[in-house]
Amino acid sequence: MTKTVEFGKDLTGLEGLSVDQISTILDVAEPFKEISERPIKKVPVLRGKTIVNLFYEPSTRTRVSFEFAEKRLSADTVNISGSGSSIVKGESLVDTARNLEAMRIDMVVIRHGSSGAARFLADRIPSNVINAGDGQHEHPTQGLLDMLTIRDHMGGIEGRRVCIVGDILHSRVARSNIYGLTKLGADVAVCGPPTLIPHGIEELGVQVFKRVEEAIEWAEVLNVLRLQLERMKAGYIPSLREYNRFFGISVARLEKAPRDILILHPGPMNRGVEIDSHVADGPHSVILRQVTNGVAIRMAVLYLLAGGSPERAEAAKMENRS
Amino acid sequence: MTKTVEFGKDLTGLEGLSVDQISTILDVAEPFKEISERPIKKVPVLRGKTIVNLFYEPSTRTRVSFEFAEKRLSADTVNISGSGSSIVKGESLVDTARNLEAMRIDMVVIRHGSSGAARFLADRIPSNVINAGDGQHEHPTQGLLDMLTIRDHMGGIEGRRVCIVGDILHSRVARSNIYGLTKLGADVAVCGPPTLIPHGIEELGVQVFKRVEEAIEWAEVLNVLRLQLERMKAGYIPSLREYNRFFGISVARLEKAPRDILILHPGPMNRGVEIDSHVADGPHSVILRQVTNGVAIRMAVLYLLAGGSPERAEAAKMENRS
Amino acid sequence: MTKTVEFGKDLTGLEGLSVDQISTILDVAEPFKEISERPIKKVPVLRGKTIVNLFYEPSTRTRVSFEFAEKRLSADTVNISGSGSSIVKGESLVDTARNLEAMRIDMVVIRHGSSGAARFLADRIPSNVINAGDGQHEHPTQGLLDMLTIRDHMGGIEGRRVCIVGDILHSRVARSNIYGLTKLGADVAVCGPPTLIPHGIEELGVQVFKRVEEAIEWAEVLNVLRLQLERMKAGYIPSLREYNRFFGISVARLEKAPRDILILHPGPMNRGVEIDSHVADGPHSVILRQVTNGVAIRMAVLYLLAGGSPERAEAAKMENRS
Repeated sequence: MTKTVEFGKDLTGLEGLSVDQISTILDVAEPFKEISERPIKKVPVLRGKTIVNLFYEPSTRTRVSFEFAEKRLSADTVNISGSGSSIVKGESLVDTARNLEAMRIDMVVIRHGSSGAARFLADRIPSNVINAGDGQHEHPTQGLLDMLTIRDHMGGIEGRRVCIVGDILHSRVARSNIYGLTKLGADVAVCGPPTLIPHGIEELGVQVFKRVEEAIEWAEVLNVLRLQLERMKAGYIPSLREYNRFFGISVARLEKAPRDILILHPGPMNRGVEIDSHVADGPHSVILRQVTNGVAIRMAVLYLLAGGSPERAEAAKMENRS
Repeated sequence: MTKTVEFGKDLTGLEGLSVDQISTILDVAEPFKEISERPIKKVPVLRGKTIVNLFYEPSTRTRVSFEFAEKRLSADTVNISGSGSSIVKGESLVDTARNLEAMRIDMVVIRHGSSGAARFLADRIPSNVINAGDGQHEHPTQGLLDMLTIRDHMGGIEGRRVCIVGDILHSRVARSNIYGLTKLGADVAVCGPPTLIPHGIEELGVQVFKRVEEAIEWAEVLNVLRLQLERMKAGYIPSLREYNRFFGISVARLEKAPRDILILHPGPMNRGVEIDSHVADGPHSVILRQVTNGVAIRMAVLYLLAGGSPERAEAAKMENRS
Repeated sequence: MTKTVEFGKDLTGLEGLSVDQISTILDVAEPFKEISERPIKKVPVLRGKTIVNLFYEPSTRTRVSFEFAEKRLSADTVNISGSGSSIVKGESLVDTARNLEAMRIDMVVIRHGSSGAARFLADRIPSNVINAGDGQHEHPTQGLLDMLTIRDHMGGIEGRRVCIVGDILHSRVARSNIYGLTKLGADVAVCGPPTLIPHGIEELGVQVFKRVEEAIEWAEVLNVLRLQLERMKAGYIPSLREYNRFFGISVARLEKAPRDILILHPGPMNRGVEIDSHVADGPHSVILRQVTNGVAIRMAVLYLLAGGSPERAEAAKMENRS
């Protein structure tokens, strides 16, 4: 853990982070893991700070993970959700943001359907902005928790062969994984139907497998993406059955691998579509570990953006007044 | 209050509880009642504990009662509601539960439309699970608060004649009342239209009155159930007016009773259907007392499942740091 | 700040408040402003108090402002929203209120579509009731925050010429502004299309301008109301374009004024309809300051209704245990 690593005001994506910044977040997450294992899961690190979880798209899982992270750091949280309807009577994102800012909030966690929404917001308000997924752009805390989970189980990230399987075209999770993993020196590949692999993806430093068998032959880690069921209607894939037949991760397929393969999935799973239950619940699945690490990663990001010192994270977790 | 009473991990119903366990919950609720009467309604009993209120069916009243109980015990709470839509993008209950567990929650309060959902969940996660109503199965904290209210006003439960009036067939409240009250030695009866009385209900140790006049003649306590208005559409009753005419609890009917009858209703009421306003707001109604007792019962259940000692409940309520 | 000013149980409107009461709320808001500027935005003034935000109409902005005010005073808050659907299974407002009361809440903040709902509630429960907007009646905390903002920027309210522009007929904001501002000695006018000016409004002590140019010629402050877009469908105005052409506040219009005019808007804005962006974001706009003041006003109202002493507000803000 270097002493000189500094963080900007926001976390909108992994593309713009340095290797040191990413490593520091992963390192700082380590001491925060332990807080969630205590009988009293609370430290006063963000006491009196006001955080808004501004979710234009529904995402119970990510919202709840952030909310636990915030509450375990003793922040005051307010949820704003706009599922289905306009948030503040059709107000623009920037007016909503300025209004929240005028109420003197400290941080905004934003999930939005448009790529770039988090950056747009971050440039317009002085509060810290954390991207909880923006369109098809990035979902940086998901990328970080995936990396932390890989590091936990593989002893490191550098040189590891990680293949992301599924709908790469529409996936902000894929993008954050590619940026983060390649920066830390992993060998990254993607695999999916040709309609769901973006043209020119190789320029991001990844190789492409057309057949999942090749990916399994090569990889040490598979990060299996959720197949958005609406892709079928939109004509990207012929049917869920076809998708499962050609790209579904099954025990039979994994048994042909020359080694044990670590299985990740960002959830929620479509069991029997992109992943079979025997794999999801099997001995090499770390899917629930990802969820546990997600809370620690979010605590680390909140702590660092709030100005917490990387070196003092270990000490911060020991405080327990409030 | 016996010292040897132990509680399992969960509260999914009253059917499986012992007499001692039920009595202990009622006893422990007593000291917790007083907390809600204080200027500062907060004790640090569950500080740093994480509780999820997972409501697949909408129920503002029950959710709010649990939320107050949790906050008055200083727990950190997160609400997840799935009214109308799938909760986590169509994820199964067990995947949702495992994910919450992976975030290291301490307790789940679950309301679900399927009978057995609470038990299903309780068997799959190590967190404490509290059933806040599952399908037509049980609603144990409602049963307990009804019992506490009867005990408060009648000086005890044993030997008391309690008749539950209404749609027994579909009612989880009826079921939890029957299990709890019969265990504590009450004489329990049910009364309602033949279409809404389950066959073989007598095997649970209750008698059946076909006419509400007979029930009123017999009972010391009436627990009047809410008539779900959709029952009419489904053909169980001919009309609300007919229902009111034959089973509605009115002052005129109660005046023919040989004694004052204590009136309970789990709410929300359909005034003028199953109960008339003069009864609901009358001198023998303890309907609002039930609501007050509901918070105390939920505090007691949360306290006991979290490992609180029945003997120390009186002391716990005196703590007031944090 | 007089020592003898007392407050009733509720704040349902500004119509019934005395000059001293209004002045005291504005004065008490002053020390509370500073709390939101601190790194740790929390004082223990309402610790252990239970507040319900009961929003029958959606209003993210007002709800969030109250929620921040409550949390910064350390209250425990529960949100109940009934957007689109009945709140507690079609229960009446009074039954909902009695139930909340039975759970021993301390305060209710209510937003409701019917004029008089807040008063109705206030008369039926012993908890403090704060009107967060009831039909076309009043929105007193909005009126107060508007007045605080005018006072901040004009050095006082007495003798200031304030014109409210827009849909006066349907606006609870207009009504609270008129009551409050006239009590404190401002000269108040209204301006809008004849269909949207209530008959006999002059009896409230305001003058009416038919043309916005006349209003701009006269006023030192413009409070520009949101045009509810549904007014067009209902035939009150021919089109948004027409409205903007005749009543929209633009830079060109303001440049013709004999003086700088302070611009207020209660939000959310329809940019390009009732107000142009260059005005909204211009040097004389205090729209975001209104939002900031809104939190302080709500803290002051919560503090005073909870029995806080006006003289001790300055001391209260210094407390920082908890």
